[in-house]
Amino acid sequence: MTAHYMTASEARRAMAAGSLTPLDLTRACLGRIAEDDARTRAWICMNGAAETQAEAIASSDPRPLAGIPVAIKDMIDTGDMPTTHNSPLYGGHRPAADAPCVEVLRAAGAIVLGKADTFEFAAGGRHAATLNPHDPTRTPGGSSSGSAAAVGGGHVPLALGTQTGGSTIRPAAYCGAGALKPSWGLISTEGVKRYAVSFDTVGLFSRSVEDLALLADVYALPEAPAATEGRLKIGVCRTPYFDQALPETVALFDALEDMLSPVADLVPFDLPAGFDEADELHRCVMHCEGASAFLNLVRTRPTLLHDDFHHRVELRGGYTQRQHYEAYDSLALMRIEMERRMAGVDVVLAPSAPGYAPKLENGLRPKENPVFNACWTALQLPVVNLPVWAPGAELPLGISLIAPRAHDRRLLALAGRLDGLLDQRQAVANF
Amino acid sequence: MTAHYMTASEARRAMAAGSLTPLDLTRACLGRIAEDDARTRAWICMNGAAETQAEAIASSDPRPLAGIPVAIKDMIDTGDMPTTHNSPLYGGHRPAADAPCVEVLRAAGAIVLGKADTFEFAAGGRHAATLNPHDPTRTPGGSSSGSAAAVGGGHVPLALGTQTGGSTIRPAAYCGAGALKPSWGLISTEGVKRYAVSFDTVGLFSRSVEDLALLADVYALPEAPAATEGRLKIGVCRTPYFDQALPETVALFDALEDMLSPVADLVPFDLPAGFDEADELHRCVMHCEGASAFLNLVRTRPTLLHDDFHHRVELRGGYTQRQHYEAYDSLALMRIEMERRMAGVDVVLAPSAPGYAPKLENGLRPKENPVFNACWTALQLPVVNLPVWAPGAELPLGISLIAPRAHDRRLLALAGRLDGLLDQRQAVANF
Repeated sequence: MTAHYMTASEARRAMAAGSLTPLDLTRACLGRIAEDDARTRAWICMNGAAETQAEAIASSDPRPLAGIPVAIKDMIDTGDMPTTHNSPLYGGHRPAADAPCVEVLRAAGAIVLGKADTFEFAAGGRHAATLNPHDPTRTPGGSSSGSAAAVGGGHVPLALGTQTGGSTIRPAAYCGAGALKPSWGLISTEGVKRYAVSFDTVGLFSRSVEDLALLADVYALPEAPAATEGRLKIGVCRTPYFDQALPETVALFDALEDMLSPVADLVPFDLPAGFDEADELHRCVMHCEGASAFLNLVRTRPTLLHDDFHHRVELRGGYTQRQHYEAYDSLALMRIEMERRMAGVDVVLAPSAPGYAPKLENGLRPKENPVFNACWTALQLPVVNLPVWAPGAELPLGISLIAPRAHDRRLLALAGRLDGLLDQRQAVANF
Repeated sequence: MTAHYMTASEARRAMAAGSLTPLDLTRACLGRIAEDDARTRAWICMNGAAETQAEAIASSDPRPLAGIPVAIKDMIDTGDMPTTHNSPLYGGHRPAADAPCVEVLRAAGAIVLGKADTFEFAAGGRHAATLNPHDPTRTPGGSSSGSAAAVGGGHVPLALGTQTGGSTIRPAAYCGAGALKPSWGLISTEGVKRYAVSFDTVGLFSRSVEDLALLADVYALPEAPAATEGRLKIGVCRTPYFDQALPETVALFDALEDMLSPVADLVPFDLPAGFDEADELHRCVMHCEGASAFLNLVRTRPTLLHDDFHHRVELRGGYTQRQHYEAYDSLALMRIEMERRMAGVDVVLAPSAPGYAPKLENGLRPKENPVFNACWTALQLPVVNLPVWAPGAELPLGISLIAPRAHDRRLLALAGRLDGLLDQRQAVANF
């Protein structure tokens, strides 16, 4: 297998066996980027010292990510590269230090190859220039466009993104990447550009569930209380928004029982009453918190600031600050009831996106639909995206697996049991 | 009145009347700092360009804080001065930009005179060197020690601090400063060192309620739905922790009815069942979120890191991450019930601290007791500290006024009606 298509775990094993060095892997990834990124445009800025840094790491280095190249969404501070948030207002911004989530990766031995493109402030305004690595006439999804495309396109095995609505899980689905949006609050978002503090989450991209578990170790995500042996009981949740699912997603859900029957029984998951308001409550909190997050830009750089952000500060999506707190309370009650119901199944399964990555419209990105993601983000729940490839398919779909808060590692263990059943390509492993 | 003892609002009026310039005021404050700070040690670093910046501001400048000197707690990023978090690990740290909360102040015309001392990471480890401006044998309180002492000591009319437990309200009480801890989430904490994301709040210090309202305008804090005319109904809440109140606080609460009788009727405030667990729930969330916040320090700089932070990351105060989420849920239910009960009164009144600022012990700061503050922080509620000076007293006490979330401006309007009744010194106005 070409080194740049290896997962991080495979690469680590090859390094331990002496058949791959960190420099080999970094060069393979840089070569793949040179070959593909003129088209895919996942990257905003490359780390000119990457090869030097790779050369300094021994193949025998025991750190969990020693010599593994990663992409960092350009919403996240790096001390050695600019951090622009894809905004002309921050075009010259050079943070003084890495964000803690990047420091933790580098301390584990990872090599930051560069910064990945994003929607402006992960919210609106300017879109990422990134195209879908599987079809350049389609969006890669956003806002973590570059991170998803870099992993899905074979540039790097791992990437960091962020999610406030569906900005990790949806682009992962569109680009055929695995992803974990952890339980809210477990990975520090210090040094990550603020949007909505109650929802902002560092998202993890990889090409295998095994690699997501490796990252979960690195970030000290919590252990699960129970094992995952035996036949699984999966709660299938079409969500209240299934009328927005496209035919390919409807067909996938009709086929799920057959696909997963080797290891699991599927039961309908009964959502709490009022769950159909979760998307609206998410929107209220996101807009009200965004009004605080972007106030400084309106006060200091109003002329160049995109109208999206003026509107967020001035209009708060039409909500009052009192509604903002009432939305916190409604979501808190929904979290309690949701987890009570989740106790009856091993895991909840839902769509990661309406369907295949949408086509660009006159060269521009279509409006993103976060309706299958925002509800889980609003409930603070951990979500894994598993790519689904039908036999012969040229585009991936995505399945979301959802667990109670703090069950992140148990969720990954469960996801690992389903992964191979959803990828039905006769292709190279993991890609 | 000496200019450095003016409130910001008084100074703005003097500037509008042509009797004071921004440079006059800045020089008066710098002179007071030169005179007092060898003793009080409120400041870590001064802005060498302050006089130049003041000179560039016209007395007629209409911005709300034009020419007003402020102190910034050294937990908050400044682009023109180091930000050390009072930690040797960040001794050389130079942020690339102001935190948004500082940008908003400067855009309103404020002059940042310098950085104010703090407990290390506003959490533990190294204490501030600051002493109480009214008695150098006593603590100024923490963690916003320098901000409270600078305002209480007449160095500057306004300061920013932070509060995760009681780090704004308690030092304000000990130093005789007014303060507002806004409803959680209304002022962006981006660029403020992370401790516990669910609680971290930018706190505002001033020498008058009028000035807190000025800051509330600058930060676009929400308007209140109702006016505050007529006789007030105040819910007196001794809290479940009143056995930790010192005799001076017990005496104050016995005298409150007489003091406030000109404008208010006092009724006992009936707390929700289980409220006595709020302090413990706060502790659980703070420790679990702190474990995420400080993980990068353990991974990158373990040798020099104070044991306080090793323990936070490794032990999480003894809590599991699952307990962390259950604490979120319990606090959310308590918020709902608390606000239901608050609908029966205009405002809730409680102690800001156990009593007078404690004496230093062998030159070291005594352990801080946040028990009268953490419960309100945990409930996201806005809190105002009003200084209480008995006739002839040499030390202040503090009263906390608490309102429902998003009622920050209504709370300030109510506080303005009580302020003059609590300060019984025959002294210069506002100080």
